[in-house]
Amino acid sequence: MKPFLHVKHPEDILEIIGTLPSLASETVFLEESLNRVLSEPLHSPEDLPHFPRATMDGYAVKARDTFGASESIPALLTLAGEIVMGQSAEVPVFPGQCFRIATGGMLPPGADAVVMIEHTQVLDAQTIEVFRSVSPGDHLIRIGEDLKRGQPMIPRGHRLRPQDLGLLAGVGIRQVTVCRRPRVAIISTGDEIVSIDRKPPPGSVRDINAYTLPALVEKNGGIPLFLGLVRDSREALRGKCREALEQADMVLVSGGSSVGTRDFTLEVIESFPASQVLAHGIAISPGKPTILARIGEKVLWGLPGHTASAMVVFSVFVKPCLNRLEGAEPAKINPGLRARLTRNLASAQGRDDYIRVALQAGPQGWEAEPILGQSGLISTLVRSDGLVRIDRFTEGKEKGDWVEVFLF
Amino acid sequence: MKPFLHVKHPEDILEIIGTLPSLASETVFLEESLNRVLSEPLHSPEDLPHFPRATMDGYAVKARDTFGASESIPALLTLAGEIVMGQSAEVPVFPGQCFRIATGGMLPPGADAVVMIEHTQVLDAQTIEVFRSVSPGDHLIRIGEDLKRGQPMIPRGHRLRPQDLGLLAGVGIRQVTVCRRPRVAIISTGDEIVSIDRKPPPGSVRDINAYTLPALVEKNGGIPLFLGLVRDSREALRGKCREALEQADMVLVSGGSSVGTRDFTLEVIESFPASQVLAHGIAISPGKPTILARIGEKVLWGLPGHTASAMVVFSVFVKPCLNRLEGAEPAKINPGLRARLTRNLASAQGRDDYIRVALQAGPQGWEAEPILGQSGLISTLVRSDGLVRIDRFTEGKEKGDWVEVFLF
Repeated sequence: MKPFLHVKHPEDILEIIGTLPSLASETVFLEESLNRVLSEPLHSPEDLPHFPRATMDGYAVKARDTFGASESIPALLTLAGEIVMGQSAEVPVFPGQCFRIATGGMLPPGADAVVMIEHTQVLDAQTIEVFRSVSPGDHLIRIGEDLKRGQPMIPRGHRLRPQDLGLLAGVGIRQVTVCRRPRVAIISTGDEIVSIDRKPPPGSVRDINAYTLPALVEKNGGIPLFLGLVRDSREALRGKCREALEQADMVLVSGGSSVGTRDFTLEVIESFPASQVLAHGIAISPGKPTILARIGEKVLWGLPGHTASAMVVFSVFVKPCLNRLEGAEPAKINPGLRARLTRNLASAQGRDDYIRVALQAGPQGWEAEPILGQSGLISTLVRSDGLVRIDRFTEGKEKGDWVEVFLF
Repeated sequence: MKPFLHVKHPEDILEIIGTLPSLASETVFLEESLNRVLSEPLHSPEDLPHFPRATMDGYAVKARDTFGASESIPALLTLAGEIVMGQSAEVPVFPGQCFRIATGGMLPPGADAVVMIEHTQVLDAQTIEVFRSVSPGDHLIRIGEDLKRGQPMIPRGHRLRPQDLGLLAGVGIRQVTVCRRPRVAIISTGDEIVSIDRKPPPGSVRDINAYTLPALVEKNGGIPLFLGLVRDSREALRGKCREALEQADMVLVSGGSSVGTRDFTLEVIESFPASQVLAHGIAISPGKPTILARIGEKVLWGLPGHTASAMVVFSVFVKPCLNRLEGAEPAKINPGLRARLTRNLASAQGRDDYIRVALQAGPQGWEAEPILGQSGLISTLVRSDGLVRIDRFTEGKEKGDWVEVFLF
């Protein structure tokens, strides 16, 4: 077996990923922008709200007219009219007057507070009793209180959530400039792999990665392009990689489980102009025989053929790489769960170990049950909820230790 | 103001949701099944793997032939050939023999273990030295070890993840039976609301919920159908609701912030045959003026017009309702984060309060900073990472208390 020439530590891989340029940007309509990544910061083009709004149903008043009002000594105000929803309120409130107003209605000139309807009573057609005093600013939003014109709203690199779309709609932004979604070509290799349409003869297995990898790409913001299965032949792989590099921003080659195919992959990479192998082997388990290369502006990953290993490499490296291409800033919150290990876990030093765990509720919170069994099993992937990492400086973890579980 | 006639507790609403029937099922191709919900349990149609496979590169052996092997006294085995990837291995291993095999290769008849290549050395073209003993079963997967024919694979109600697609591909399942995705019609109401294409005059605001609600529906497995904006008129609302009920499984009517519109909505609901108002008001804040109704087989929600309130009601009730329609079992893990409050939070008894918080990393883990400000603000939604619930039996929480944050 050839030695791994460029085995790298996980931090080095993440550092390399951090230097990749993001893709070009494009303009999309707001209604198509969910989960897209802003490629430029957005500032508010106007004040929000652009008129003072009531936040409660009640009466628009001059606060001073309510000072001292109580259940026993209500303030009496003259009802000067009703604010019509959706219309500009132009008739001013004079001292001693009030206007009936609903939540969201425009405060009339001269009004500086809203009295909640619960604290009032209609005495007669022209007179309202107010039982509580309000202060200026109560139960209303001032012009620009939500956002001022020119104020930063959403930074570059933010992945848009439903509430972000709401804010942009609120200030009338119809289109946004976002990074292109990475197009990811997926190639399966291996003489033992057959398409799932066929019943595999003894010695052959179905192409599982043709389903897991496109799904992972889609789940993480990319556009998957499955290019099919190639035999373990240098020429076949080179032809398929050329096609992939023409169509996609990133290429995932999975497989090469037969001895020698990993070398094909390297030779194929090196046969393209402007290619550079950035890593040949990563000090993690599973996933050591991973290849990372740049070919011109494109990124190529050689992933292990075993689905379980490929999924670990995807979660730990390919996902942040997709985010980087899409220009996304690292998520502030990576929702991991803290859980206690239900048994000791040994780990080899010198590499980061990723262990699949199933979560269960325990008396003191979540418990993480390591899922044992051969690394080649796929059913254990389905039973697992996430991964626990044991870094290369740690010999292992003990039963009862708190660990962080990265959910898949 | 009319009294709320059927104010319900949150548990009652969730109980009602739990009685709704799920939608009909349909068959989709595996490659289109990510995030869909299985409507029937799946059992494995075959053994996986269907032949014994090596999980390491090395030599297929009879384990007995390696017993006692060590660095100083290696076992010497005769190399009988090489297993070709993807082909049936039919020539048996006889005592004292071995076959070269790669990860994923088929074990030849008679072999019961694989010796890792790292523990061997080629002595000459026909002789392999083995430096470690292996036990029967080492470094291989037996027939059916991953899944046995007829074994349950994935239960009904499970939302399919990338690894589930992999397992199904592995056993040759090309199509799956899933629940139909709920079609959700969205209607905005309010005389003060204008489409975002228009610059709103004083007194009017843009239709924010026309963007947040479809995005929330899409994010939670539904198919959003935005039907547009209607004036606060009984006839207009009834016409739009009729259209919605024809096209969709669920209707979301947002708005009705002007006094009286909530009553329109109730009257409109009651004007349809087979309608039943299940809740008129829920004891939560924000979100109290929420309506839940059934109209025949369809579900209608009347949501508050304020985006922040509508989002809370969506997260707490509409999302589980969508899951129910789609036949999804409640997620085993609802990734909430534990965080410490950075300040005291008062809460009214008799209702569940949902408070927006921003998360920040603190010395002892996450800290949840309550976001104060008027409920009508939308910029605070964008600054918040999730919600903290203070249930109606609790008077409040103190600074430093650990709370569960539901991420939006």
